[in-house]
Amino acid sequence: MVLTNGEKVLRLSGCDAVYASSEVLLRYLAGFEAENGCVVVDKTGTTLYTDKRYIEAAEKLFAGTCVTPLLYTQKELLTRLAGYEKVGVSFDWTAHSEHVTLEKAGVKTQNIDEKFAEAMGVKNEWEIENISLACKIAERAFLKLLPEIKEGMTEAEVAALLEYYMRTLGAQGTSFATIVAFGAHAAVPHHETGETKLKFGDEILIDFGCKVNGYCSDITRTFLFGDDQKHGEFKKAYAAVLAAHELVKERAKSGMTGAEVDAIAREYLKERGYGELFTHSLGHGIGLNIHEYPSVSPKGTTPLTDGMVFSDEPGVYVKGEYGIRIEDTVTFEKGKVKSFMTETDRNLLIL
Amino acid sequence: MVLTNGEKVLRLSGCDAVYASSEVLLRYLAGFEAENGCVVVDKTGTTLYTDKRYIEAAEKLFAGTCVTPLLYTQKELLTRLAGYEKVGVSFDWTAHSEHVTLEKAGVKTQNIDEKFAEAMGVKNEWEIENISLACKIAERAFLKLLPEIKEGMTEAEVAALLEYYMRTLGAQGTSFATIVAFGAHAAVPHHETGETKLKFGDEILIDFGCKVNGYCSDITRTFLFGDDQKHGEFKKAYAAVLAAHELVKERAKSGMTGAEVDAIAREYLKERGYGELFTHSLGHGIGLNIHEYPSVSPKGTTPLTDGMVFSDEPGVYVKGEYGIRIEDTVTFEKGKVKSFMTETDRNLLIL
Repeated sequence: MVLTNGEKVLRLSGCDAVYASSEVLLRYLAGFEAENGCVVVDKTGTTLYTDKRYIEAAEKLFAGTCVTPLLYTQKELLTRLAGYEKVGVSFDWTAHSEHVTLEKAGVKTQNIDEKFAEAMGVKNEWEIENISLACKIAERAFLKLLPEIKEGMTEAEVAALLEYYMRTLGAQGTSFATIVAFGAHAAVPHHETGETKLKFGDEILIDFGCKVNGYCSDITRTFLFGDDQKHGEFKKAYAAVLAAHELVKERAKSGMTGAEVDAIAREYLKERGYGELFTHSLGHGIGLNIHEYPSVSPKGTTPLTDGMVFSDEPGVYVKGEYGIRIEDTVTFEKGKVKSFMTETDRNLLIL
Repeated sequence: MVLTNGEKVLRLSGCDAVYASSEVLLRYLAGFEAENGCVVVDKTGTTLYTDKRYIEAAEKLFAGTCVTPLLYTQKELLTRLAGYEKVGVSFDWTAHSEHVTLEKAGVKTQNIDEKFAEAMGVKNEWEIENISLACKIAERAFLKLLPEIKEGMTEAEVAALLEYYMRTLGAQGTSFATIVAFGAHAAVPHHETGETKLKFGDEILIDFGCKVNGYCSDITRTFLFGDDQKHGEFKKAYAAVLAAHELVKERAKSGMTGAEVDAIAREYLKERGYGELFTHSLGHGIGLNIHEYPSVSPKGTTPLTDGMVFSDEPGVYVKGEYGIRIEDTVTFEKGKVKSFMTETDRNLLIL
């Protein structure tokens, strides 16, 4: 029997009802995005409360499903919630002011952040389809972008064009602020895309992604804009990062902890003298949030299971010189890593 | 003497310190955007706590200013906060889980949401400049878009192109999900931009905006893609909405409440028989948030003052037929309305 996301969280929580009001959790529990609304899940089904701007769209969308859209009134909602023995709530995704209101109304809340993380960490078929499509769109946009990259373009122009292609290929929008870094800017893992112009011989690092039905993709590619023959160290490091990236795909197995998966790349880079230069985690969970459970870092104690989606993104950064990151969004399927990125090459590209 | 935003909020709050950790409040209090960080303002100045990904950029940005960037450690932060008599916090923009952590550490918080709203409602010169630029970019992108609109394009394609132009003109991104509505879709004020194709004679409603340094613009234009001579009622209503929109610019004065400003347009439309069809507020405050204080609606009890920025967006909607909304982002300057939109026409445009 396939459970809805709401049923999944309700079961895990052990509460009589689950309540959420953040945009992401609305999307997760009811498949609906609205600026203003909330969801109650109990054993009778899922109720989506929203305002008159969204109610018509909701009624159309949920006709014949187990989700009942209702016009929101605070009084009715609070009376209903106060009637439960225990209401599961995400303390991370509930404003403190809202919690104060719930408490005053006598609602007995329980923090179920860990249960949300656990439920959201393992994706169902529909979620995998959306992530897969978001990855395809990102890759295709990147392939459309490559021949359009010209000397003198700014980082911001490259980002704008890439985002435009993702949008025209069907993305809702970006999953985070696109990072385009030319030359030594790539050595800053979270470089802010700016007005720097592209020169012959520059390296280019692009970290980007888009959303489909709220689900994110995340991908990084590093390449050269012409080869000025000054990239000896860069190329050596690139080969090491690529090998670390591929080794994770080969050796990571479901059941390993995040730390064990991280260690595959980390040990490999350490042995080659790049240990100190790999300054971040190997990866992070990806879903409705661009960074979510599980952690794929030295601190990741959770065993990773089939259906979890995360990034495989080793990197090497030399301040003032160069930066390399190669990232795919991947999942575990039948115990093994399966990458969603199938259309772009990871070998060093020289434009 | 010009106060920094942090000093402004600290004074209004009457607390010993102000603490915030949301992205928008980080931007407001310290002019810095980071996924992970927090700000403490006290009489000695502003401290920005962030992680190692952002610390280098922060040190560069704040050299020689009253903002001190520090590497975040929870222990140090909580010890510091627990040392104050009263710490002002936005309960709306603090997660309940974080508040639980603060309480456990003995931090004595006080809700200062109203003080934040009050401070953020009145923009300083730098904020006005950013909003003005965000408005200019939106208008210029719209003017670039018009000659590119062709029969057969989808709503999503038009939105993507408009967003691309805003981005290339210098916007950081959109201030909200662009609404492009063809034909009767315009009758749904929050229509979800889709795959509908443009036909000769369709009306087009576009509600959009972008961000500059975090500050938003918001603009709506309604026009015709060719005139199939079936738009008699539409044109009559358009003239009424435009007149209501302009009347607000003419008659609204600082010192009036939001409700009084809203009533200028509402009464005008009511007298012409459109009262029931104007189904939303006249406007909303605009700043780092696309919807913020003050309210410009029948419920708006706050007097609007110089330096406040809000939308003037009357609309008329006839289900299944047509929808019209004409929106500028405006401010009060020397007691009178000043629109940031100076480059686009509001008269009915027929492509």
